[in-house]
Amino acid sequence: MTVIRCGEDSIVADMGIRLDRVLIHEDTDISKLSHEELAQRGIIPALNGDYGKVRAIVLTHGHLDHIGAVPLLAGKFPEAPIIGTPYTIELVRRELRGRAQNPLYVLEAGEVLQLMPDLSIEFVRITHSIPDTVFLVVHTREGSVAYLNDFKLDDNPVIGTKPDYRRIRELGKEGLKALIIETTRVSNDGRTPSEQVARTLLEDTLLKSSGEKGLIVTTFSSHIARLKSVVDIATKLDREPVLLGRSMEKYVGIAERKGIVDLPENTHIYGSKNAIKKVLRRVAKEKHRYLLIVTGHQGEPDALLTRIANQKMEYRIEEGDEVLFSADIIPNPINVAQRYAVETKLKLQGARLFKGLHVSGHASKEDHYDLLKMLQPEKVIPTHGSLEMQASYAELAESLGYSINREVFLLRNGQRVSV
Amino acid sequence: MTVIRCGEDSIVADMGIRLDRVLIHEDTDISKLSHEELAQRGIIPALNGDYGKVRAIVLTHGHLDHIGAVPLLAGKFPEAPIIGTPYTIELVRRELRGRAQNPLYVLEAGEVLQLMPDLSIEFVRITHSIPDTVFLVVHTREGSVAYLNDFKLDDNPVIGTKPDYRRIRELGKEGLKALIIETTRVSNDGRTPSEQVARTLLEDTLLKSSGEKGLIVTTFSSHIARLKSVVDIATKLDREPVLLGRSMEKYVGIAERKGIVDLPENTHIYGSKNAIKKVLRRVAKEKHRYLLIVTGHQGEPDALLTRIANQKMEYRIEEGDEVLFSADIIPNPINVAQRYAVETKLKLQGARLFKGLHVSGHASKEDHYDLLKMLQPEKVIPTHGSLEMQASYAELAESLGYSINREVFLLRNGQRVSV
Amino acid sequence: MTVIRCGEDSIVADMGIRLDRVLIHEDTDISKLSHEELAQRGIIPALNGDYGKVRAIVLTHGHLDHIGAVPLLAGKFPEAPIIGTPYTIELVRRELRGRAQNPLYVLEAGEVLQLMPDLSIEFVRITHSIPDTVFLVVHTREGSVAYLNDFKLDDNPVIGTKPDYRRIRELGKEGLKALIIETTRVSNDGRTPSEQVARTLLEDTLLKSSGEKGLIVTTFSSHIARLKSVVDIATKLDREPVLLGRSMEKYVGIAERKGIVDLPENTHIYGSKNAIKKVLRRVAKEKHRYLLIVTGHQGEPDALLTRIANQKMEYRIEEGDEVLFSADIIPNPINVAQRYAVETKLKLQGARLFKGLHVSGHASKEDHYDLLKMLQPEKVIPTHGSLEMQASYAELAESLGYSINREVFLLRNGQRVSV
Amino acid sequence: MTVIRCGEDSIVADMGIRLDRVLIHEDTDISKLSHEELAQRGIIPALNGDYGKVRAIVLTHGHLDHIGAVPLLAGKFPEAPIIGTPYTIELVRRELRGRAQNPLYVLEAGEVLQLMPDLSIEFVRITHSIPDTVFLVVHTREGSVAYLNDFKLDDNPVIGTKPDYRRIRELGKEGLKALIIETTRVSNDGRTPSEQVARTLLEDTLLKSSGEKGLIVTTFSSHIARLKSVVDIATKLDREPVLLGRSMEKYVGIAERKGIVDLPENTHIYGSKNAIKKVLRRVAKEKHRYLLIVTGHQGEPDALLTRIANQKMEYRIEEGDEVLFSADIIPNPINVAQRYAVETKLKLQGARLFKGLHVSGHASKEDHYDLLKMLQPEKVIPTHGSLEMQASYAELAESLGYSINREVFLLRNGQRVSV
Repeated sequence: MTVIRCGEDSIVADMGIRLDRVLIHEDTDISKLSHEELAQRGIIPALNGDYGKVRAIVLTHGHLDHIGAVPLLAGKFPEAPIIGTPYTIELVRRELRGRAQNPLYVLEAGEVLQLMPDLSIEFVRITHSIPDTVFLVVHTREGSVAYLNDFKLDDNPVIGTKPDYRRIRELGKEGLKALIIETTRVSNDGRTPSEQVARTLLEDTLLKSSGEKGLIVTTFSSHIARLKSVVDIATKLDREPVLLGRSMEKYVGIAERKGIVDLPENTHIYGSKNAIKKVLRRVAKEKHRYLLIVTGHQGEPDALLTRIANQKMEYRIEEGDEVLFSADIIPNPINVAQRYAVETKLKLQGARLFKGLHVSGHASKEDHYDLLKMLQPEKVIPTHGSLEMQASYAELAESLGYSINREVFLLRNGQRVSV
Repeated sequence: MTVIRCGEDSIVADMGIRLDRVLIHEDTDISKLSHEELAQRGIIPALNGDYGKVRAIVLTHGHLDHIGAVPLLAGKFPEAPIIGTPYTIELVRRELRGRAQNPLYVLEAGEVLQLMPDLSIEFVRITHSIPDTVFLVVHTREGSVAYLNDFKLDDNPVIGTKPDYRRIRELGKEGLKALIIETTRVSNDGRTPSEQVARTLLEDTLLKSSGEKGLIVTTFSSHIARLKSVVDIATKLDREPVLLGRSMEKYVGIAERKGIVDLPENTHIYGSKNAIKKVLRRVAKEKHRYLLIVTGHQGEPDALLTRIANQKMEYRIEEGDEVLFSADIIPNPINVAQRYAVETKLKLQGARLFKGLHVSGHASKEDHYDLLKMLQPEKVIPTHGSLEMQASYAELAESLGYSINREVFLLRNGQRVSV
Repeated sequence: MTVIRCGEDSIVADMGIRLDRVLIHEDTDISKLSHEELAQRGIIPALNGDYGKVRAIVLTHGHLDHIGAVPLLAGKFPEAPIIGTPYTIELVRRELRGRAQNPLYVLEAGEVLQLMPDLSIEFVRITHSIPDTVFLVVHTREGSVAYLNDFKLDDNPVIGTKPDYRRIRELGKEGLKALIIETTRVSNDGRTPSEQVARTLLEDTLLKSSGEKGLIVTTFSSHIARLKSVVDIATKLDREPVLLGRSMEKYVGIAERKGIVDLPENTHIYGSKNAIKKVLRRVAKEKHRYLLIVTGHQGEPDALLTRIANQKMEYRIEEGDEVLFSADIIPNPINVAQRYAVETKLKLQGARLFKGLHVSGHASKEDHYDLLKMLQPEKVIPTHGSLEMQASYAELAESLGYSINREVFLLRNGQRVSV
Repeated sequence: MTVIRCGEDSIVADMGIRLDRVLIHEDTDISKLSHEELAQRGIIPALNGDYGKVRAIVLTHGHLDHIGAVPLLAGKFPEAPIIGTPYTIELVRRELRGRAQNPLYVLEAGEVLQLMPDLSIEFVRITHSIPDTVFLVVHTREGSVAYLNDFKLDDNPVIGTKPDYRRIRELGKEGLKALIIETTRVSNDGRTPSEQVARTLLEDTLLKSSGEKGLIVTTFSSHIARLKSVVDIATKLDREPVLLGRSMEKYVGIAERKGIVDLPENTHIYGSKNAIKKVLRRVAKEKHRYLLIVTGHQGEPDALLTRIANQKMEYRIEEGDEVLFSADIIPNPINVAQRYAVETKLKLQGARLFKGLHVSGHASKEDHYDLLKMLQPEKVIPTHGSLEMQASYAELAESLGYSINREVFLLRNGQRVSV
């Protein structure tokens, strides 16, 4: 969560939970902890600054590390509307289930919303691993600030369109006071490959799969472009795509209703435990007719792939069945271990495993270079990473003439900088 | 488990359980599985060969991957005595609790036992990470076979004496038909450092510890030499050593009764939950007076260090307390994750962590070279590792003139070789 | 080099040099060493077996580790014809420059050559990272043996067609006595991506390149498919492709003459030092009009990219120029160091580096699974790797019912197996 | 090189060359480059600031990255005396060979030198991997600044005494305005082991060496404590220690003359090429009588071990000879490759290699914690590392209550901070 303030007015950008901090307390019931305890453990933002008057809570995309704390914290600013793109707002509405009364407001990519005479916000189209991602520009009487958390520069995003480079370049020419930007993969060389590369990788491997055996793909439920690719390939393989899992139903359902994706008629989607049980029993008899798309790419204990690996479902893995992980392990030893347990069990049962059929949703070093060159902000505040990652961004910025301490500022949670 | 057979008579060497296979089924109650299910999952040996007449079950040391299946499988050979060194036999007696009726027989390092006119077994003193480890030589009318699983060549083992090099060289001169040997660390360059190095490392770090804060060391309960070193250093630090945990009590208790180690009078050892609770409450008030030695070096969920990290005990970690892990992570993602969770929680509570204060109990490449040169067996069967590790051993043996397929044989579970 | 023998007659398959053994003797003039010295250092095969009567030297593709020793060793079997596909034979002709007098014979993929009444050889189309790669089947009165060194299973190879799966399956049904197969990447999970993936990766990154700056790609000179992709992308970028380097001229020239590839008219190719100097002087003035494709992907001291990095050419790197490495580092510390030096110099001069835009030319674990399932040989001899890599192959084969020592044999140089 | 300035007066602390920048220009003759070119390539400091009046050039220890630029740059401040401990000054005198006329001044650890009424410098005894290392405290009318580049906290340094903890704690109590401190290993957990651990490791491995074969140790020529340990072990092995190499003669010779170390009478030291040739010819005939201690631990092309590996010396490696590397590879791909080439050649000739018998000379994370707690400076400037390493230090300092931007400042070359 970032606060951008001008005079007495401020904008809250994103309100997430820190998922790795949840994982290590797997033995604790998070829902029973108070806000103070959650903040102290680093799970939700600690609201201990002077934020002036919060005029809006702006959400740039629908991942939980950006919207997950809204139900807990939005109520602290009861008059601030929650603003996001259609897909994001729909996800927030689901999360809230009435737990905060803030008004919800839909703003489309490319639109500007005047909040006060001197304060407006703008959404600029960008790409990431969830539909309808934008970045935020706050226009104030003192100048404009851009907030880019998270993004990649994808010119072939499979669904949706590529970043609004025209507006990005224009912002650079108009002059930006400051840029607040994520650093997740700034240490990675080169440019992050487009989603089209993931599609080609998947197609390349899946079209070689055995025509007789079971075929299972697991990936991010919110990654609608990836799911679209797998469903399209299923058709080429003459298999019916079957999406299973509660979160699959949620994210795909909203995407279909919002017109973001249009899956073929023969696509099956089931979220409830009972429906899943029933369909798996049927699929197990004719495995070669279906391509299963399931939750569990991180080996999460309750996800469907894990339950299959644990032989808790009537669908049993047999020698030669193929299981594809279209997701990297989110680098955290808990995930590593859970994936390991699932993979080992699947292998012991005879499955052939395919991993790494994935591209990241985050910009790499040279994407950052490209973007920084286009936006040309006066000051830069690298965020959303450890001090080391922020330092990596600072070293990159040096090659475009920025200096640490003069134009690039490394901040810790709770710190502020005036520009 | 290895079977060495000559004509109709055979010797079973070790009977262990495979611990990493237990870990990935953490959601299964192992004790409810049948022998067949356990064998099928690779947890215990599958007894599906023709072993002739088993004349003895010989255990070379007391680790669970060498004795853990005795309660389950020894009964399959009811007439075979279980033979081991005093410490090993005492541990087996505990494990058995009457579950198999085979006679227990103590054989000391350096002794020979005539089982039949043409069949005797010999124990040769060797070093490892548990007291009273030996290797086995089976003397038959067709020649002798040595079985070395597991070992290191430690000339400064802190407790006990160094390997019986005199007898080892003598065996080489007498002529060995075959050598069966572990390969755990054969890919590691050089020689494995002696336990004296671990002692020096521990002393070096512990003597710099703060005199005011809490001090906790975790290590293997069965590694009596390591525990001895920590206890000795506690005395130098003017702290009272307190050993806590059920397995600490078991392994140290037996070692003391068998005269293997003699800890100072002021050493406290508690195994029961109640006693541990009580002593921790007392220690927590004067942390600087004690050095705690606890279970939990792999982050095992039920171990004491984990319970402290989970804030389930009345001893709370405070800023500046020091926690030493005198154990490497046994390389398995489940362990990696459990250690990670424990370490992260300890750090969040303010602990300073010290890791890697450890040396291995397994021979490295050049130790294998030294040993192979001394024993000069006709044939070698590398074991106790994947095919890749066995292949590594074969490459090492090549530098001493052995050839794969001619003198070195790579075998899989269930395979046999005639020499 | 492998010898396949039936009775008194034998076939030599490939005759390569070991390139990593050359690299560590960079201070020695290899060309001055005798055959014995070269063989002793492991650079060329040691011909110390009883090979019977060698009826043919068969070359499966044109890489130096498969044809590099032909000039040195073919003369030892003066009556044996050297047999290969058109592209391979053309490369051998160049290497030989008359140094051996063996007849050269062209055999196309899909053809069979009867060498003697009971002995014929067959070429089956397969894919790799050089054009015109085949695998060899030797048909004898005792049965057939397939030799697959090196290959991948690429269904979208950019140039040429995919493997001859029809014939591969047929061979499986006819019955193969034995399979001799490479193991380079058998430890890598999944299937190796097709060349189409490399093309997509390159396109994705290159189409984002700056329109004003210099643009350089380096890759394997013999990888004609890769070069084709880069040239095609140059056209999309409205830049003229310029291929520079002696080996570029050699491999591309032969490929064009043999009709393997047809590059656009505006493609420039220069091999001689003088021509390269001249064209670089011209290109340097209008960098944005050209896309340079140069040698030096491993940082080889004499390659063009290295000379540019060393500022020995009139083409100087400037801030923002982009340099793409479409090749992984061949894993050898000498290469690592040479690449490092080149990369560091390029970066100090302002270049932006793009790496890993590459896919391997070798089959991964699941490709091996697919192939083994199709070919169903009675026996398997994994080759072209360390014992550890052969052992990895053996573990893979186990999942299809093969057992080490019974059907899978791990051999060392100089060993033989009878089937 | 760091400048500490108070008003118009300043102190230059250290004047080194950046060795990794030299390595990548191995094809360039460094000695022919101008100061400007050397500075531009990052090899020597760029003197482009306003340093006021430089009152002294103070050198804290004798490594080249701290004194190597003195011959080139000291002349820019002709009136400033060069101040160091006896061992350091003696090394500088050798380097200078008259190339700068600044007066040389010896200051012992524990002494204070009054430079001006308001400006004095103090040397405090600390430990590192070269004798006579100190850290600098500059006392000014505005307060004191400590400069600690490089150090470890070694309580058992084999030669010399442990750090002057009494004075360190006292400085903390007196109050330090700022601390400038190295960060080389701040990302490494725990405390750096003492030199005593390296000695134990060496002894443990060397005492097991074959009594009949050749025995060679390579380590840092300037690491007198390490050399002392090896020489002592030679005596235990009943082998005569023979130190070979020009830099061995230099560093050991000075250490003996300054009374820093006293090697046994039977120690041989030879630096000139001719003498080395002669002694090697003799040693080669009775390898078992000698322990060779040679240059070449990084595989440097001209070092003695490399020349032996290249078979340029009359001492040839034979099967079973043992070669110990008592040094880690300084992490730079050039070193990695050079070591690799040397190791591979030695192995091909039959040598058994022993690596990693070494401990670092740099403080680890918890040493930094201990020191920061003792010194309690108001401000901290982490140096001598990338921004990422500085950021790591900042994160460590946070656990002792320091905040980035407020008390901890990350600076780049050429930047300054006022405290």
